Amino acid sequence: MPNPTAAMLVIGDEILSGCTRDANMHHLAGKLAEVGIDLREARIVSDAPEAIVAAVNALRASYDNVFTSGGIGPTHDDLTADCIAEAFGVAIGVREDARAILQAHYDTTGRQMNEARLRMARIPDGATLIDNPVSAAPGFTLENVHVMAGVPAIFEAMVESLLPTLIGGAPVLSRTLRIERGEGVIAAPLRALAETYPDLGFGSYPFQQDGVHGANIVIRGSDPARLDAAAGRLADLFDL
Amino acid sequence: MPNPTAAMLVIGDEILSGCTRDANMHHLAGKLAEVGIDLREARIVSDAPEAIVAAVNALRASYDNVFTSGGIGPTHDDLTADCIAEAFGVAIGVREDARAILQAHYDTTGRQMNEARLRMARIPDGATLIDNPVSAAPGFTLENVHVMAGVPAIFEAMVESLLPTLIGGAPVLSRTLRIERGEGVIAAPLRALAETYPDLGFGSYPFQQDGVHGANIVIRGSDPARLDAAAGRLADLFDL
Repeated sequence: MPNPTAAMLVIGDEILSGCTRDANMHHLAGKLAEVGIDLREARIVSDAPEAIVAAVNALRASYDNVFTSGGIGPTHDDLTADCIAEAFGVAIGVREDARAILQAHYDTTGRQMNEARLRMARIPDGATLIDNPVSAAPGFTLENVHVMAGVPAIFEAMVESLLPTLIGGAPVLSRTLRIERGEGVIAAPLRALAETYPDLGFGSYPFQQDGVHGANIVIRGSDPARLDAAAGRLADLFDL
Repeated sequence: MPNPTAAMLVIGDEILSGCTRDANMHHLAGKLAEVGIDLREARIVSDAPEAIVAAVNALRASYDNVFTSGGIGPTHDDLTADCIAEAFGVAIGVREDARAILQAHYDTTGRQMNEARLRMARIPDGATLIDNPVSAAPGFTLENVHVMAGVPAIFEAMVESLLPTLIGGAPVLSRTLRIERGEGVIAAPLRALAETYPDLGFGSYPFQQDGVHGANIVIRGSDPARLDAAAGRLADLFDL
């Protein structure tokens, strides 16, 4: 049975304007590989509601899981929860269990609930909360869409809360060989090897550093014995 | 007149599998801000031809410029040039000027042309070459789609070659204020300020580090005097 599929949607002007370099996609990609969910696509959109709604609807129709990051805080540019509600055509409002989680957190830390903070208790109808052990304000899952915060420490904690609840598949394993030869020399034998192992994926990622050029060949699949066999053949071909 | 718009398409399994963290999008985002081209969306797709073709066609219909990275090398998983030709419905084949550029490079570096390397001279009909001062194999522009290599040093050199040929707009300037208060306290005055300056963009990017939490408030726009005025108002509000 093929592995479940996934897409990620990163929401935030700060990535597209070059202010911030996204870290959450890379983190999620590694975690999904471990649990056998195939990340097939990622999109980064700005804080524009129509862009968020369109991307959510396109991705949730195409993949088994959609993971979003960003836009669920208390400020005026945090629009994700409303956009998710709009994408699904459901209502959104303050939910008592989410409000109680926030209130308990503010009581403990000596802060006051206010209108801005209460925005973080607004949850689309029908969603399940995702636990946030870092700063309390929850994420949520609505059908196959999992909505999480953009701050990396919080995103990562939410991923930890969420992943055990999802159906995974065969973990994606890999073997990497560093070949200090030009890709133009590697290409023909690599293509032949890839045709011999149609159940594995072969990627060639060239590098140039300190005057040395070559490529990292990454072989991916779910069967360790097949991976070892293919990696051994490749090593023999290039006297590694 | 509004600035020209752009999208980026990153092609490569290595990003989605978590093996590699993309660097090219962040680089391009900064360069485009300097020349006044608004990067509105980025997508990352795997080395699957149907995914590449669909993304190219969706993005080139929606934005003034599309920049791609990855998949134009000599190995079997380099499929981008063929996918661009398919997306535009044009033929692709070895082009003599591209072959001559490669041949001169191999002659200089004491290497031989072979079938794999010749693949890098395959250019869709009607394209213009993009100079590659690092490793010779050119990128290309077809209508509003600019196709570049994935290796960061080569991608960056191609961007330098390409950008002076594009029509830009007003550079996007920004002012950033670090406010060591919770976003829940910042939110209400920030929203009021944003409503006073509808020509500027206000983003709030929370952080938590070493026990300090707060947010970086980024104000973006094209008029330095307006930015300074808004940043001054914000600083006054929080006694910065």
